[in-house]
Amino acid sequence: MVDKKLGGAGLRGQSAGETSLSTVGQSGTGLTYCGYDVTDLAENVTFEEVAYLLFHGELPNQTQLDAYKQKLKSLRCLPRALKEVLERIPADAHPMDVMRTAASMLGNLETEKDFSEQKDAADRLLATFPAIICYWYRFSHFGDRIITETDDDQLGAYFLHLLHGKKPSELHARVMDVSLILYAEHEFNASTFTARVCASTLSDLHSCITGAIGSLRGPLHGGANEAAMELIQDLTDPDHARSVLAQKLANKDKIMGFGHAVYRESDPRNAIIKQWSQQLSQQADSSRLYDVSVACEAFMWEQKKLFCNADFFHASAYHYMGIPTKLFTPIFVCSRLTGWAAHVFEQRANNRIIRPSADYVGVEPRTVTPIEQR
Amino acid sequence: MVDKKLGGAGLRGQSAGETSLSTVGQSGTGLTYCGYDVTDLAENVTFEEVAYLLFHGELPNQTQLDAYKQKLKSLRCLPRALKEVLERIPADAHPMDVMRTAASMLGNLETEKDFSEQKDAADRLLATFPAIICYWYRFSHFGDRIITETDDDQLGAYFLHLLHGKKPSELHARVMDVSLILYAEHEFNASTFTARVCASTLSDLHSCITGAIGSLRGPLHGGANEAAMELIQDLTDPDHARSVLAQKLANKDKIMGFGHAVYRESDPRNAIIKQWSQQLSQQADSSRLYDVSVACEAFMWEQKKLFCNADFFHASAYHYMGIPTKLFTPIFVCSRLTGWAAHVFEQRANNRIIRPSADYVGVEPRTVTPIEQR
Repeated sequence: MVDKKLGGAGLRGQSAGETSLSTVGQSGTGLTYCGYDVTDLAENVTFEEVAYLLFHGELPNQTQLDAYKQKLKSLRCLPRALKEVLERIPADAHPMDVMRTAASMLGNLETEKDFSEQKDAADRLLATFPAIICYWYRFSHFGDRIITETDDDQLGAYFLHLLHGKKPSELHARVMDVSLILYAEHEFNASTFTARVCASTLSDLHSCITGAIGSLRGPLHGGANEAAMELIQDLTDPDHARSVLAQKLANKDKIMGFGHAVYRESDPRNAIIKQWSQQLSQQADSSRLYDVSVACEAFMWEQKKLFCNADFFHASAYHYMGIPTKLFTPIFVCSRLTGWAAHVFEQRANNRIIRPSADYVGVEPRTVTPIEQR
Repeated sequence: MVDKKLGGAGLRGQSAGETSLSTVGQSGTGLTYCGYDVTDLAENVTFEEVAYLLFHGELPNQTQLDAYKQKLKSLRCLPRALKEVLERIPADAHPMDVMRTAASMLGNLETEKDFSEQKDAADRLLATFPAIICYWYRFSHFGDRIITETDDDQLGAYFLHLLHGKKPSELHARVMDVSLILYAEHEFNASTFTARVCASTLSDLHSCITGAIGSLRGPLHGGANEAAMELIQDLTDPDHARSVLAQKLANKDKIMGFGHAVYRESDPRNAIIKQWSQQLSQQADSSRLYDVSVACEAFMWEQKKLFCNADFFHASAYHYMGIPTKLFTPIFVCSRLTGWAAHVFEQRANNRIIRPSADYVGVEPRTVTPIEQR
């Protein structure tokens, strides 16, 4: 969404609480998780370390990381009742509806009974989300009942393995890992705020995550990388890209993947994923998708001073790894779950129910007219 | 929750938007829906008229009401895949998890493809929620696969019919109807606000409702009538009630069913449901539950100037109608769905994504230490 105004509607610019988890758009540091710049994290750690950081406040040492990865690996089995539910969701369902329903169903089967279980519940969701989306996708589209227990060392590689039925290349595994790091946490965005409002009633973790998935599903939020893919997939070359965008701007069409509700000058995640998209394009049969994306970026900056956000080069990157467009936002879920859960923990630790007021703009007081006189 | 402070945490006292749907706690009018006092509505109309009012802004005339009731009746059939999901949810699941999962599953099977379908999608949820909770309850607890199509004229009676397997008395049908009116709408409470945050990403109606159910599940929100039942069920007489409450106050235990985040002097819904609870008690074998409830009300006012909210006398009223305590909050869902959906329509009609800011209270910027040095 392109929107430069601050303050006013949508609580823009108003504080809704405190967080120790991230900063977004503060000067000098585009995006930090627990004090670490996202660029530093994307270069020097893995997604499992970021998940650990968000859940515990500190990066793990080697022993802690090994134990954590072992734990996540041990949690990859889907309960039978959950698989039976996934098998009843049609192939033409919205994949975010599948994620939302599966997270909710897991809450029935493995209810978080007490907040002391919150980290285990979050780890379980983290370990199973790749299996949930791939199990449904491969069953509904190809009739496969995949085995979800594998020995993949990391979550990104695990997802690609389940999706394609074979272990990914080192480059693909690394790009997925970086992608999961970039999407992990982003302060009080709409889906995270949904999770916190839910948490503020002291509801369970599955409710909070289910609600957050529903918000991320919206085209103004998580749907942007899919929309970016729809834009670029038909662009034949850079000239074509420029003429299509010029037409869209003339029509005042929404162009997804550009601008941001909080960042004013650039999205720090863009340079990172762009660089990986370029590497993928060099190994691919054709660099068209990367080339048209670069042309779009330059054109939008030239014409409207709008920059690419995290979503734009994710589209080409995911496509190069053979990921169907409809699964882009579910990958976002697999990653952002870590931020959502960490915000739930934080809300619970210092809670007050989130219950704002509203300005009434309706009709004046009136009395009921008997139905025969209406 | 007992809390008298205004302003500050939890967005208390801060406006998060505009609404035409209701006023809460404005002087002279405790609670209005579209300008009508809830007392006027509870005395003079039916729940179906309130649902129509919230969805359309005006009460229906007789022709419109007849058509609306006919439509709701025609939508009572549960899809087979949904029933198969309900049959896979164990008897010891939290009934709100069942509602949340079923609302989400219905979104897979009957996705709202376009906002032009929003009222139909809301009517479908409204028509099926009583069947959803009763189908799961009777299958998981008794092995019954109930037929969900009945000729009951109203939603409240329909719920009691499915629950008990027989048509309710006129009094019970009327009390359920009033109860559904009282719970229908309540401005920007936490579950409704959840629905609006979700709607603000332009997500679908099922996501909004699923998220709202998750928030209502929290013990600080929808769980209050169940907690009130747990309190009163063991009270043998008014003297016992007073001594138990005195002990709880001395221990600083939370006492649910009293006070309110917005109302300062009384909850206008209390007098209405209290009066119906009294009528039910007069037809019951014992008036104990009503009598101890009256004693609790007097004691809490005397000791703490705390008044009963809508939930307190709902506990005895529902119990007199043979409703298991665990289904109290799901009934709240069957009613509040109307307010949630109306707020989603309103948010969509004048939308800006709800994305507040946060105050950062975390660690200062730092750089990643190599894992072998951590």
